[in-house]
Amino acid sequence: MRSVERWGMFEVRLNGHWEGNPFVDRTIQGIFRNEKEEVTVEGFYDGVGEYCVRFMPSYTGEYQYEISGTFSEEVSKGTFQVTEPAAGNHGPVRVVYGTRLAYEDGTPYNSLGTTCYAWVHQDVVLQRQTLSSLADSPFNKIRFCFFPKFYLYNTREPDTYPYERGESRGQDARQQGMNINMKLDVKDEIADIRDFDGYRFNTEHFRKFDRQIKNLMDMGIEADLILLHPYDKWGFSTMSRECDELYLKYVTARYAAYRNVWWSLANEYDLLRQKTEEDWDAYGELIREKDPWQHLRSIHNCMVFYDYNKDWITHCSMQRIDLYKHVEDTDIYEQKYKKPIVWDEIAYEGNIDMGWGNITGKEMVRRFWESVLRGGYAGHGETYCHYQDILWWSHGGKLHGKSPKRIAFLEKIMEETPGGYLKRGEGAFDELVGIPIDQERKCGWGTETHCDYEIHYYGFGRPAFRNFKFPENERYRIEVIDTWKMKVIPVGTFSGKCRIELPGKQYMAIRLIRES
Amino acid sequence: MRSVERWGMFEVRLNGHWEGNPFVDRTIQGIFRNEKEEVTVEGFYDGVGEYCVRFMPSYTGEYQYEISGTFSEEVSKGTFQVTEPAAGNHGPVRVVYGTRLAYEDGTPYNSLGTTCYAWVHQDVVLQRQTLSSLADSPFNKIRFCFFPKFYLYNTREPDTYPYERGESRGQDARQQGMNINMKLDVKDEIADIRDFDGYRFNTEHFRKFDRQIKNLMDMGIEADLILLHPYDKWGFSTMSRECDELYLKYVTARYAAYRNVWWSLANEYDLLRQKTEEDWDAYGELIREKDPWQHLRSIHNCMVFYDYNKDWITHCSMQRIDLYKHVEDTDIYEQKYKKPIVWDEIAYEGNIDMGWGNITGKEMVRRFWESVLRGGYAGHGETYCHYQDILWWSHGGKLHGKSPKRIAFLEKIMEETPGGYLKRGEGAFDELVGIPIDQERKCGWGTETHCDYEIHYYGFGRPAFRNFKFPENERYRIEVIDTWKMKVIPVGTFSGKCRIELPGKQYMAIRLIRES
Repeated sequence: MRSVERWGMFEVRLNGHWEGNPFVDRTIQGIFRNEKEEVTVEGFYDGVGEYCVRFMPSYTGEYQYEISGTFSEEVSKGTFQVTEPAAGNHGPVRVVYGTRLAYEDGTPYNSLGTTCYAWVHQDVVLQRQTLSSLADSPFNKIRFCFFPKFYLYNTREPDTYPYERGESRGQDARQQGMNINMKLDVKDEIADIRDFDGYRFNTEHFRKFDRQIKNLMDMGIEADLILLHPYDKWGFSTMSRECDELYLKYVTARYAAYRNVWWSLANEYDLLRQKTEEDWDAYGELIREKDPWQHLRSIHNCMVFYDYNKDWITHCSMQRIDLYKHVEDTDIYEQKYKKPIVWDEIAYEGNIDMGWGNITGKEMVRRFWESVLRGGYAGHGETYCHYQDILWWSHGGKLHGKSPKRIAFLEKIMEETPGGYLKRGEGAFDELVGIPIDQERKCGWGTETHCDYEIHYYGFGRPAFRNFKFPENERYRIEVIDTWKMKVIPVGTFSGKCRIELPGKQYMAIRLIRES
Repeated sequence: MRSVERWGMFEVRLNGHWEGNPFVDRTIQGIFRNEKEEVTVEGFYDGVGEYCVRFMPSYTGEYQYEISGTFSEEVSKGTFQVTEPAAGNHGPVRVVYGTRLAYEDGTPYNSLGTTCYAWVHQDVVLQRQTLSSLADSPFNKIRFCFFPKFYLYNTREPDTYPYERGESRGQDARQQGMNINMKLDVKDEIADIRDFDGYRFNTEHFRKFDRQIKNLMDMGIEADLILLHPYDKWGFSTMSRECDELYLKYVTARYAAYRNVWWSLANEYDLLRQKTEEDWDAYGELIREKDPWQHLRSIHNCMVFYDYNKDWITHCSMQRIDLYKHVEDTDIYEQKYKKPIVWDEIAYEGNIDMGWGNITGKEMVRRFWESVLRGGYAGHGETYCHYQDILWWSHGGKLHGKSPKRIAFLEKIMEETPGGYLKRGEGAFDELVGIPIDQERKCGWGTETHCDYEIHYYGFGRPAFRNFKFPENERYRIEVIDTWKMKVIPVGTFSGKCRIELPGKQYMAIRLIRES
């Protein structure tokens, strides 16, 4: 009997009709049952007469399945065994406590994202290098685009396209691509656009994503899959609603059984000017309806946040909408939307000409700490000028910056949080000295058991000392954390009033742990 | 015949009645005339039977005066000659073009402020050191308090008090002082408060301010005199309305003839909880009515901006109300209030425990540039821990920080602006590449003749290059400015498209100067 681990991907491949246009003309579905669940799953056509149904079992034990549809006159049945998950497989990521994230097995998921928009569209050697860089990094989520990307530093044609070439259907390639790129010198390139058939998918392109989503899954990295985006010259951003929906159903049928998939409906949705809010809501609802495993769903903005109150949205996938203040408002947004706050763009470490792509490693790390200490999650990206224009943010490749190591250190600190989650609270023991607004006071946090554990982060400030005042009958262990040098320095155990010396440098924190 | 330079201070001292309470019981006024003006000025009692009238002539040539009042049965008359102003005397500072500042002779006033709240309350040696530090600094405005200060790092008794000790009148010293300091351990100190007579001024205290306002005037430094403040344990912040008004009239009569005086009605007015908005407006109107020379008037906030639309307010004397974004909104506030934007607190360079007092020199200088390039003015302060608790921000003394030298460099750059004033404008030639919000684009400025002169400042970003696109028939001289290393690096002259290399460091700017 075939077997698969719990939350692994089980696949049934069958031959069927291939005349006409099977993507549109044929259906295939599977019913999967064990004693705890019965799940109906849509399958998809994978070219040259082959059909496929994929399933992610949520329980261990024996399952039965039954595959049917117009793809074939036959009904296929079978059984398989689901084993315990291997080490590192914790299931899909879910929302817990309203605004935090955890794997389905209950392990807290401290999301530390990065972005390589077009890495799957690069050559195989570069893709392999990206995976190797990710393996050495702290990142456990990556954002990337299903459609190829045409934008600054990324104007080469991809190896594969998502649609078959042929007679243009379901799109007007000549009118599109002007969304975002009208200011690039792309007139010549636009003239070179091929015609694509919006009703026929190029399965080679999709298979590339099968492989890489699987590779990421095996590495314990969430695949935050961007379904639509505006960096386009081929017309993929301006398909008809019918074609978009055909595509979204196909993507859902194909990738939903990978436990590490997240659905990012769009990158910078507000630059996709041809789509309306009604379109987005319909697309979001469609994915919700079609995805049997209810993976996380969101939509990412450029200048204006989407209305994250919408029911189909599981978490806020935010890009800063202000240059100077953004992650510092994480707790405000959490209160507003009552969903996890995931900062998917807070500018990139680098030195390119654009303001969004030239912050320092120190500033990147500060933004991570400011997010995390307010209960949010942050995402990294890197845009260093490169002699071959290989920029991590777009192409993947190697990491050149200073922030990843420090983000790994932050991960370690996060993992030490008792109970797994920091909770907003007043910095109860920080001696009050008159000024009601003060940077560091905003980052005083306690755990569920208020006062057992607090991290006070001083960001770009550089106090030479801090005073605390504990109850006389309680003892606190104090550590100074150098978030840049990645050191935890034990200071001692204190009661009552105490003065803690600091080095008067930026990016320091103090951790208080109650001992009695 | 006595003589004084234009905008100098001419003083007439006369003896008169000294029995009873001359501060309340007696009047003295002077009428000063020349062919261009006739000004009526109130005088003041200066103790031991001496009365004084002060006058600032706005024109050159011969003046006559006539002094009368209940202080004496006699009327005194005289004449004096007003000569051309000496070098460095440009007259009082006025508002020009609605939102900018200039001296009365038309010279642009690029306000570069600093703050030493209690410097005049320190011993004479320290006061002398403060003046010497100011002489070596770029600062041309200083904020300081008339009343002594009781607050963090500043808890010693001053040498002199503004009121005579005696029976407590016009105040309730026992109830006050609790505004801001209730969280300091001051119970013992509060018990030590003396009783002051709110109807009798201590002229020795006022004479100290005569001397120092004059010293600042001679150095070309504006004296931004803070009339009320909450850092109090003696009761001076909670006097009755009658006493406050007596005090404000006295101060106006005494100091208005110094050309360098600005009236700052309060520091952190919103912490003076006993005063109402109606009080502040009445006090502002009183000063407006009593000051013959209409010096600049404002009021400074802690957490909430005052309503700067009020007619009596000449400019916005702002403290940041957000920790992360403040000077970056200078242009927005300018549009809102249509008055000069003077940032009188944007945190201090230093390393004390408080978040408002431990930013880096780099961040201080960035805040200056961000203000200035948006048409505003900024103020410095310094709070480094000191073994004797001598902190520039409060006591004056020596400057220890890294920002003053760079602020001097900024002053030089400002002085090179054609026409004297930067004007808001689009960075017309900065090649647009798709992202509508971008840090550097917010700081593209042109002069009155748009496109003749632009400074593009990149703040904490660190581009390795920038592209520009000029009209083919125009030539631009380009310079790279390192605002931290204080260097202007000529790059060359360009037409059409060009790429300007930058060092990929923070705090850089590019200057474009049209040559043809």
